[in-house]
Amino acid sequence: MAEVGVFEAIHTLLQITRYKPDPVPQEAIEKVIEAATMAPSGGNIQEWEFIVITDRHLVGQVARVYREIWLEEHGEELREGEPPVYKRARHLAKHMHEVPVLILMCADHQRGYWGHTQGDPIVRGIYAHSIWPAAQNLFLAARGLGLGTRITTNHMPREQEIKELLGIPDYVETVALIPMGYPQGKFVTPKRRPAAEVTSYNRYGNRKV
Amino acid sequence: MAEVGVFEAIHTLLQITRYKPDPVPQEAIEKVIEAATMAPSGGNIQEWEFIVITDRHLVGQVARVYREIWLEEHGEELREGEPPVYKRARHLAKHMHEVPVLILMCADHQRGYWGHTQGDPIVRGIYAHSIWPAAQNLFLAARGLGLGTRITTNHMPREQEIKELLGIPDYVETVALIPMGYPQGKFVTPKRRPAAEVTSYNRYGNRKV
Repeated sequence: MAEVGVFEAIHTLLQITRYKPDPVPQEAIEKVIEAATMAPSGGNIQEWEFIVITDRHLVGQVARVYREIWLEEHGEELREGEPPVYKRARHLAKHMHEVPVLILMCADHQRGYWGHTQGDPIVRGIYAHSIWPAAQNLFLAARGLGLGTRITTNHMPREQEIKELLGIPDYVETVALIPMGYPQGKFVTPKRRPAAEVTSYNRYGNRKV
Repeated sequence: MAEVGVFEAIHTLLQITRYKPDPVPQEAIEKVIEAATMAPSGGNIQEWEFIVITDRHLVGQVARVYREIWLEEHGEELREGEPPVYKRARHLAKHMHEVPVLILMCADHQRGYWGHTQGDPIVRGIYAHSIWPAAQNLFLAARGLGLGTRITTNHMPREQEIKELLGIPDYVETVALIPMGYPQGKFVTPKRRPAAEVTSYNRYGNRKV
C-alpha cells in the first residue's frame, strides 16, 4: 500500500470521537511515538515523555476521571444551544474506557527547563507548549496508519490524581491525553475557517497579497 | 512528481538555518498556511493568524530586532562549550534579513479565549499553546513542497516592537517567527533521543511493553 501523502494526512486529520475496540499493534504504537520524537522543540530539548496506557484496569481508571470531569462541566445529556462538537466530545467522554490505547503526553522538566522554572506551575505551563509539535506529528503518523486520535486536555483539573495512578513524579507535567484506535467512521476534511481569512500580508489585517 | 509521504516528511523535517534567496511562489505560501489551518485546536477555536512578511523593508526591520536579541544573548562569535545548535542559530540570526519569507504566527484572542483570560499575559501564554499543532502542519507542508522552515521564538523579549511594526493589536499575541525558503542543504533526519527512551508503558518510567 502506498504511503499516505503529507498533504492528504494533513487535510484529512479529523478529530475522532468514535473508536472501534480492535487492538492497536505494538509496532504501530512505536511508529507513531517515533514520529512524535522527530518534532522540533525549543533548543532541541525534547522534553516529551509518552505514557502508553493499554492495561484495561488503568484505562478504566483514567477514563473514569476524564468522564467525571467532562460530564460535570458540560452535562450528561445534550444541552440546548451547545456547539455540535460537544455532542461528539460527550460521546467520547462516556466511551473513553473502551478506547484501545490512551497516550498521555507529558513534558519531563528534568530534560529541559526545570532549572529555569523552579517548579512554578504557570511557567511550566508555558514551557510545555514546546512539545505540541510532537503531538501533531503523532496525530499525523497515526492518520498515516489509519488510526484515529483526538486532542484532549480535559483531565487537567484532576491532573494530580492521574499522576498518582501512573506513578508520575512531580517534575513531569501532563500535557494531553490522546485516545488512539481505529475509527468507526471515515477520515474526511475537517471544517475550518478559510485560510484567506486568517492570513495577513505585511501588516495585520491586510488580506490582499 | 509524487507527493512526499507523511512519514518521509516527518522524518526529514530538519530545522533549516541556511536559505537560498530564491523567492517563494505565492501559491506555495497559500498552500502551507491552508495546511496549518487544518490543525486541531482546543474547542476548534482556531485562534491562529498568519502574518506573511515579504516586503524587504519590513523583513529587514523584523530581522534586525531578531538579530540584536539573539547576538546580545549568545554573543557575536562562537563561544567555547556552547551547544552546536547555537552555531547554526547564530548564522540564521545574522542572515534573517535575507530569508525570502517570514511568517509570524499569532494567536488572535478575539477568536478564542480572550473573554476567559481578561488580557492576563500569563494566561494568554498558556492558551496560545493551542496553535502549535498548526505550526507543525505548516512546517510539514513546507517540507512537502521542498521549502525549509525553523521554529523560532527569540523575538519575544521585544514582542511589542514587532507588533508596532506590523500594526498588530493588543488582543493578538505573537507566538513564533518562522523563516521560510528553499534550503541550501538537504533534508536529512534530525538527531533525536530514541523513542524507546521516552516511552513508558502503563506506569511512568516502565520501558518494557
